[in-house]
Amino acid sequence: MKQNIYDNEIFYNSYIKLRVDSTGLNDVLEIPAFRTLLPDDLTHKKILDLGCGFGESSNWYVSQGAERVIGIDISEKMISRAKQLYQHDKIEYRCLPIEDISFHKDQFDLVLSSLAFHYIADFKNVLQEIYHCLKNNGLLIFSQEHPIVTAKKASNGWAKGENGEKLYWKLDNYNDEGIRKQKWFIDGVIKYHRTTSSIINTLIETGFNIVRVLEPIATEEAELLNEVLKEERRRPPFLIVKAQKV
Amino acid sequence: MKQNIYDNEIFYNSYIKLRVDSTGLNDVLEIPAFRTLLPDDLTHKKILDLGCGFGESSNWYVSQGAERVIGIDISEKMISRAKQLYQHDKIEYRCLPIEDISFHKDQFDLVLSSLAFHYIADFKNVLQEIYHCLKNNGLLIFSQEHPIVTAKKASNGWAKGENGEKLYWKLDNYNDEGIRKQKWFIDGVIKYHRTTSSIINTLIETGFNIVRVLEPIATEEAELLNEVLKEERRRPPFLIVKAQKV
Repeated sequence: MKQNIYDNEIFYNSYIKLRVDSTGLNDVLEIPAFRTLLPDDLTHKKILDLGCGFGESSNWYVSQGAERVIGIDISEKMISRAKQLYQHDKIEYRCLPIEDISFHKDQFDLVLSSLAFHYIADFKNVLQEIYHCLKNNGLLIFSQEHPIVTAKKASNGWAKGENGEKLYWKLDNYNDEGIRKQKWFIDGVIKYHRTTSSIINTLIETGFNIVRVLEPIATEEAELLNEVLKEERRRPPFLIVKAQKV
Repeated sequence: MKQNIYDNEIFYNSYIKLRVDSTGLNDVLEIPAFRTLLPDDLTHKKILDLGCGFGESSNWYVSQGAERVIGIDISEKMISRAKQLYQHDKIEYRCLPIEDISFHKDQFDLVLSSLAFHYIADFKNVLQEIYHCLKNNGLLIFSQEHPIVTAKKASNGWAKGENGEKLYWKLDNYNDEGIRKQKWFIDGVIKYHRTTSSIINTLIETGFNIVRVLEPIATEEAELLNEVLKEERRRPPFLIVKAQKV
């Protein structure tokens, strides 16, 4: 099933508020860590941006010298907003589920995907399509919610003390892979839990070499500005993987 | 600091009782998973067994055709017991801390280590020594306590309900790497917590390719015999990594 929560009116408005009007974990933790894995120079690079959302990253890649970016997103609202905010002759936005990509062989230097893969049911099939369209030695870099987080079923998450303070993270159901229904702005958001080992082994079986794995914490500057971010050190919110087609 | 808890009388006796007189998680979960990562045929293989304990694994490798096994352990009691139980002209036991190994270049086909690396402070240095003494394309396979388990400080572990049932695993301090003092038979057992990403990246930086990562659950037979083992699916007790010198 290809899930398009981003075209739900309530979800979309809440998400835009989170990403555009405030500074969430993405900005101070996921994006800075993700970008440390990119090649120093994006000049002449052809990039596929999977789950491009409203185009912020696609546009940033072009600003760093990328020759061409194809941004894919399942949500018409997102693609429409991307075209308003970040139209550029080097970027092509396409409204398409990630599961439906089908590109010619060996055409991208980089396939990049930020916080989208935990929505995908058939991870192996998507990895095969990515491997197919990457050039030899091309890189796949993706982030997703950490398996320690996606493992949770309804009742899990932070245990809280009497004054609402975080006591510890309630981990359970780790080896029980599959669908997780959650409330995130709206009820019934579906994510897919896979273990860290399962993610890494599926990459290797597809033909990728693992280059680097990150379980990032916030930047020092961000932690200085916002003490609460130090709590993210207590359990990793994101998993980021850099893999190479060999 | 090189820790030699296994020569503590109380610890040693309790450990032998656990491993020899009963069926612990090692036998039904860690060892079967570990062995799935070994080459099908050990004939002609030269093996270094790091943290060989009382020699059970070293002896098994020889029974599977290994040409020569060097078993290393910090504990004189363990090495002495290994010599009693599993003496063999193809096995050489040496009482030595893993941190002090120093072998000639390119001499082992396999370096194997079961549940010892979480006792090692300087993981990077040990990996460099292992890389040095492995032949090209040689394999390092090791298991250790899972970072989700080593992360815990004194108060963490399973949260228990009124009737002692396991509610969930209390995860905390994940990104705070370093020393953990625990009680395991005796007080003050020192383990070193490293995150999964840190373990994988240190291997890659040393020159290894990641071949496979396991967060094993018990075998189906074992779960049928002992229902309680299903609870190990709720949080992974072990991390097992297979890496290749390239």
